[in-house]
Amino acid sequence: MSEHKSRFLIKQRALLKGYLITMAKQNKLYGLQYKEEIKKELDRYGYKPTHSEIYKSLHELMEDGTLKQIKRKKEGAKLQTVMIYLIEDKGKAELYMKQLKVELDRCYGLLGKAIADFYS
Amino acid sequence: MSEHKSRFLIKQRALLKGYLITMAKQNKLYGLQYKEEIKKELDRYGYKPTHSEIYKSLHELMEDGTLKQIKRKKEGAKLQTVMIYLIEDKGKAELYMKQLKVELDRCYGLLGKAIADFYS
Repeated sequence: MSEHKSRFLIKQRALLKGYLITMAKQNKLYGLQYKEEIKKELDRYGYKPTHSEIYKSLHELMEDGTLKQIKRKKEGAKLQTVMIYLIEDKGKAELYMKQLKVELDRCYGLLGKAIADFYS
Repeated sequence: MSEHKSRFLIKQRALLKGYLITMAKQNKLYGLQYKEEIKKELDRYGYKPTHSEIYKSLHELMEDGTLKQIKRKKEGAKLQTVMIYLIEDKGKAELYMKQLKVELDRCYGLLGKAIADFYS
Protein backbone atom coordinates (compact mmCIF):
# COMPACT_ATOMS: atom_id res chain seq x y z
CA MET A 1 0.00 0.00 0.00
CA SER A 2 2.50 2.62 -1.13
CA GLU A 3 1.17 6.10 -0.51
CA HIS A 4 0.96 8.31 -3.55
CA LYS A 5 1.42 11.96 -2.68
CA SER A 6 -1.76 13.14 -4.29
CA ARG A 7 -3.97 10.15 -3.45
CA PHE A 8 -7.54 11.29 -2.92
CA LEU A 9 -9.29 8.31 -1.33
CA ILE A 10 -8.51 4.66 -0.70
CA LYS A 11 -8.76 2.25 -3.64
CA GLN A 12 -11.53 -0.33 -3.51
CA ARG A 13 -9.12 -3.25 -3.77
CA ALA A 14 -7.35 -2.14 -0.58
CA LEU A 15 -10.67 -2.21 1.29
CA LEU A 16 -11.64 -5.60 -0.17
CA LYS A 17 -8.30 -7.02 0.96
CA GLY A 18 -9.13 -5.82 4.46
CA TYR A 19 -12.35 -7.85 4.36
CA LEU A 20 -10.57 -10.91 2.95
CA ILE A 21 -7.83 -10.89 5.59
CA THR A 22 -10.38 -10.31 8.37
CA MET A 23 -12.55 -13.20 7.14
CA ALA A 24 -9.53 -15.48 6.74
CA LYS A 25 -8.52 -14.76 10.35
CA GLN A 26 -12.02 -15.80 11.43
CA ASN A 27 -11.97 -18.94 9.24
CA LYS A 28 -14.89 -17.53 7.28
CA LEU A 29 -13.19 -17.32 3.92
CA TYR A 30 -14.21 -20.42 2.02
CA GLY A 31 -16.24 -21.93 -0.74
CA LEU A 32 -18.05 -19.60 -3.06
CA GLN A 33 -20.33 -17.86 -0.62
CA TYR A 34 -17.69 -15.52 0.84
CA LYS A 35 -18.13 -13.23 -2.17
CA GLU A 36 -21.82 -12.96 -1.46
CA GLU A 37 -21.11 -12.23 2.18
CA ILE A 38 -18.79 -9.36 1.37
CA LYS A 39 -21.33 -7.98 -1.10
CA LYS A 40 -24.12 -8.28 1.46
CA GLU A 41 -22.07 -6.37 4.04
CA LEU A 42 -21.42 -3.47 1.70
CA ASP A 43 -24.67 -3.35 -0.23
CA ARG A 44 -26.51 -0.95 2.02
CA TYR A 45 -23.72 1.59 1.50
CA GLY A 46 -24.47 1.59 -2.22
CA TYR A 47 -21.21 -0.17 -3.06
CA LYS A 48 -21.48 -3.38 -5.07
CA PRO A 49 -18.02 -4.81 -5.74
CA THR A 50 -17.92 -7.13 -8.73
CA HIS A 51 -16.97 -10.79 -8.33
CA SER A 52 -13.96 -10.11 -10.51
CA GLU A 53 -12.75 -7.30 -8.25
CA ILE A 54 -13.06 -9.53 -5.16
CA TYR A 55 -11.37 -12.42 -6.96
CA LYS A 56 -8.43 -10.28 -8.07
CA SER A 57 -7.98 -8.95 -4.53
CA LEU A 58 -7.92 -12.52 -3.19
CA HIS A 59 -5.38 -13.62 -5.76
CA GLU A 60 -3.08 -10.69 -5.07
CA LEU A 61 -3.08 -11.72 -1.39
CA MET A 62 -2.17 -15.27 -2.37
CA GLU A 63 0.51 -14.18 -4.82
CA ASP A 64 2.27 -12.03 -2.24
CA GLY A 65 2.10 -14.84 0.33
CA THR A 66 -0.36 -13.28 2.79
CA LEU A 67 -3.04 -15.95 2.27
CA LYS A 68 -2.96 -19.59 1.25
CA GLN A 69 -5.56 -21.83 -0.34
CA ILE A 70 -6.37 -25.26 1.11
CA LYS A 71 -8.76 -28.00 0.04
CA ARG A 72 -11.02 -29.33 2.76
CA LYS A 73 -13.59 -32.06 2.79
CA LYS A 74 -17.06 -30.63 3.03
CA GLU A 75 -18.72 -31.57 6.31
CA GLY A 76 -21.22 -34.39 5.89
CA ALA A 77 -20.41 -34.83 2.24
CA LYS A 78 -18.11 -37.76 1.59
CA LEU A 79 -16.72 -36.84 -1.78
CA GLN A 80 -17.13 -33.12 -1.92
CA THR A 81 -14.30 -30.70 -1.20
CA VAL A 82 -14.38 -27.02 -0.54
CA MET A 83 -11.62 -24.40 -0.84
CA ILE A 84 -10.70 -22.53 2.30
CA TYR A 85 -8.36 -19.55 2.44
CA LEU A 86 -6.19 -19.11 5.51
CA ILE A 87 -3.54 -16.70 6.72
CA GLU A 88 -0.17 -17.83 5.32
CA ASP A 89 2.03 -15.11 6.81
CA LYS A 90 0.67 -13.64 10.03
CA GLY A 91 3.21 -10.81 10.15
CA LYS A 92 2.38 -9.75 6.62
CA ALA A 93 -1.34 -9.82 7.32
CA GLU A 94 -0.92 -7.75 10.48
CA LEU A 95 1.29 -5.21 8.74
CA TYR A 96 -1.26 -4.88 5.96
CA MET A 97 -4.09 -4.28 8.41
CA LYS A 98 -2.00 -1.74 10.31
CA GLN A 99 -1.21 0.25 7.16
CA LEU A 100 -4.81 -0.04 6.04
CA LYS A 101 -5.92 1.55 9.31
CA VAL A 102 -3.73 4.60 8.68
CA GLU A 103 -5.24 4.98 5.20
CA LEU A 104 -8.84 4.37 6.34
CA ASP A 105 -8.44 6.87 9.18
CA ARG A 106 -7.04 9.45 6.76
CA CYS A 107 -9.97 9.06 4.36
CA TYR A 108 -12.54 9.00 7.16
CA GLY A 109 -11.02 12.22 8.50
CA LEU A 110 -11.03 13.86 5.07
CA LEU A 111 -14.72 13.10 4.47
CA GLY A 112 -15.63 14.12 8.01
CA LYS A 113 -13.85 17.42 7.50
CA ALA A 114 -15.71 18.08 4.23
CA ILE A 115 -19.06 17.31 5.91
CA ALA A 116 -18.19 19.73 8.74
CA ASP A 117 -16.93 22.42 6.33
CA PHE A 118 -20.03 22.25 4.13
CA TYR A 119 -22.91 21.59 6.50
CA SER A 120 -22.18 22.98 9.94
CA MET B 1 -24.13 13.80 -9.68
CA SER B 2 -25.77 10.77 -11.23
CA GLU B 3 -25.30 7.73 -9.02
CA HIS B 4 -23.64 4.78 -10.65
CA LYS B 5 -24.83 1.51 -9.17
CA SER B 6 -21.40 0.20 -8.29
CA ARG B 7 -19.78 3.49 -7.28
CA PHE B 8 -17.20 2.86 -4.58
CA LEU B 9 -16.35 6.31 -3.19
CA ILE B 10 -17.03 9.89 -4.18
CA LYS B 11 -14.99 11.39 -7.03
CA GLN B 12 -12.55 14.13 -6.12
CA ARG B 13 -14.15 16.64 -8.49
CA ALA B 14 -17.48 16.32 -6.65
CA LEU B 15 -15.75 17.21 -3.37
CA LEU B 16 -13.85 20.11 -4.94
CA LYS B 17 -17.12 21.50 -6.30
CA GLY B 18 -18.48 21.41 -2.76
CA TYR B 19 -15.57 23.61 -1.63
CA LEU B 20 -16.01 25.98 -4.59
CA ILE B 21 -19.75 26.46 -4.02
CA THR B 22 -19.23 26.91 -0.27
CA MET B 23 -16.51 29.53 -0.87
CA ALA B 24 -18.59 31.32 -3.51
CA LYS B 25 -21.48 31.57 -1.04
CA GLN B 26 -19.10 33.17 1.46
CA ASN B 27 -17.66 35.56 -1.19
CA LYS B 28 -14.28 33.93 -0.70
CA LEU B 29 -13.84 32.62 -4.21
CA TYR B 30 -11.68 35.14 -6.01
CA GLY B 31 -8.33 36.00 -7.49
CA LEU B 32 -5.76 33.29 -7.63
CA GLN B 33 -5.36 32.49 -3.97
CA TYR B 34 -8.56 30.42 -3.62
CA LYS B 35 -6.72 27.43 -5.09
CA GLU B 36 -4.07 27.71 -2.41
CA GLU B 37 -6.75 27.98 0.25
CA ILE B 38 -8.45 24.78 -0.85
CA LYS B 39 -5.12 23.00 -0.98
CA LYS B 40 -4.19 24.27 2.46
CA GLU B 41 -7.47 22.97 3.90
CA LEU B 42 -6.97 19.48 2.53
CA ASP B 43 -3.22 19.12 2.84
CA ARG B 44 -3.16 17.61 6.31
CA TYR B 45 -5.39 14.79 5.07
CA GLY B 46 -2.73 13.81 2.57
CA TYR B 47 -4.79 14.97 -0.38
CA LYS B 48 -3.19 17.49 -2.72
CA PRO B 49 -5.55 18.36 -5.57
CA THR B 50 -3.77 19.73 -8.62
CA HIS B 51 -4.47 23.26 -9.85
CA SER B 52 -5.80 21.73 -13.04
CA GLU B 53 -8.32 19.58 -11.16
CA ILE B 54 -9.58 22.60 -9.18
CA TYR B 55 -9.73 24.71 -12.34
CA LYS B 56 -11.74 22.07 -14.23
CA SER B 57 -14.20 21.75 -11.33
CA LEU B 58 -14.68 25.53 -11.31
CA HIS B 59 -15.27 25.64 -15.05
CA GLU B 60 -17.80 22.84 -14.94
CA LEU B 61 -19.75 24.85 -12.35
CA MET B 62 -19.67 27.91 -14.64
CA GLU B 63 -20.62 25.92 -17.73
CA ASP B 64 -23.69 24.44 -16.06
CA GLY B 65 -24.73 27.87 -14.76
CA THR B 66 -24.17 27.27 -11.03
CA LEU B 67 -21.45 29.93 -10.71
CA LYS B 68 -20.65 33.10 -12.60
CA GLN B 69 -17.42 35.03 -13.04
CA ILE B 70 -17.29 38.79 -12.46
CA LYS B 71 -14.45 41.31 -12.74
CA ARG B 72 -14.02 43.55 -9.73
CA LYS B 73 -11.68 46.43 -9.05
CA LYS B 74 -9.07 45.44 -6.54
CA GLU B 75 -9.46 47.44 -3.35
CA GLY B 76 -6.91 50.25 -3.08
CA ALA B 77 -5.50 49.53 -6.52
CA LYS B 78 -6.81 51.92 -9.16
CA LEU B 79 -6.11 50.00 -12.30
CA GLN B 80 -6.03 46.42 -11.10
CA THR B 81 -8.98 44.06 -11.40
CA VAL B 82 -9.60 40.71 -9.79
CA MET B 83 -11.91 37.88 -10.83
CA ILE B 84 -14.58 36.92 -8.34
CA TYR B 85 -16.83 33.88 -8.67
CA LEU B 86 -20.36 34.14 -7.32
CA ILE B 87 -23.44 31.94 -7.17
CA GLU B 88 -25.35 32.34 -10.44
CA ASP B 89 -28.23 29.96 -9.71
CA LYS B 90 -29.01 29.58 -6.01
CA GLY B 91 -31.43 26.69 -6.53
CA LYS B 92 -28.87 24.76 -8.53
CA ALA B 93 -26.16 25.36 -5.94
CA GLU B 94 -28.44 24.25 -3.12
CA LEU B 95 -29.54 21.13 -4.98
CA TYR B 96 -25.91 20.25 -5.65
CA MET B 97 -24.97 20.62 -2.00
CA LYS B 98 -27.98 18.55 -0.94
CA GLN B 99 -27.07 15.67 -3.30
CA LEU B 100 -23.44 15.95 -2.27
CA LYS B 101 -24.46 15.47 1.37
CA VAL B 102 -26.18 12.17 0.53
CA GLU B 103 -23.04 10.96 -1.24
CA LEU B 104 -20.64 12.18 1.45
CA ASP B 105 -22.76 10.57 4.17
CA ARG B 106 -22.80 7.29 2.23
CA CYS B 107 -19.01 7.25 1.85
CA TYR B 108 -18.42 8.32 5.44
CA GLY B 109 -20.69 5.49 6.57
CA LEU B 110 -18.93 2.95 4.35
CA LEU B 111 -15.48 3.83 5.70
CA GLY B 112 -16.79 3.93 9.27
CA LYS B 113 -18.27 0.48 8.81
CA ALA B 114 -14.97 -0.90 7.48
CA ILE B 115 -13.06 0.60 10.41
CA ALA B 116 -15.55 -0.98 12.83
CA ASP B 117 -15.52 -4.34 11.01
CA PHE B 118 -11.72 -4.53 10.96
CA TYR B 119 -10.59 -2.97 14.23
CA SER B 120 -13.23 -3.36 16.91
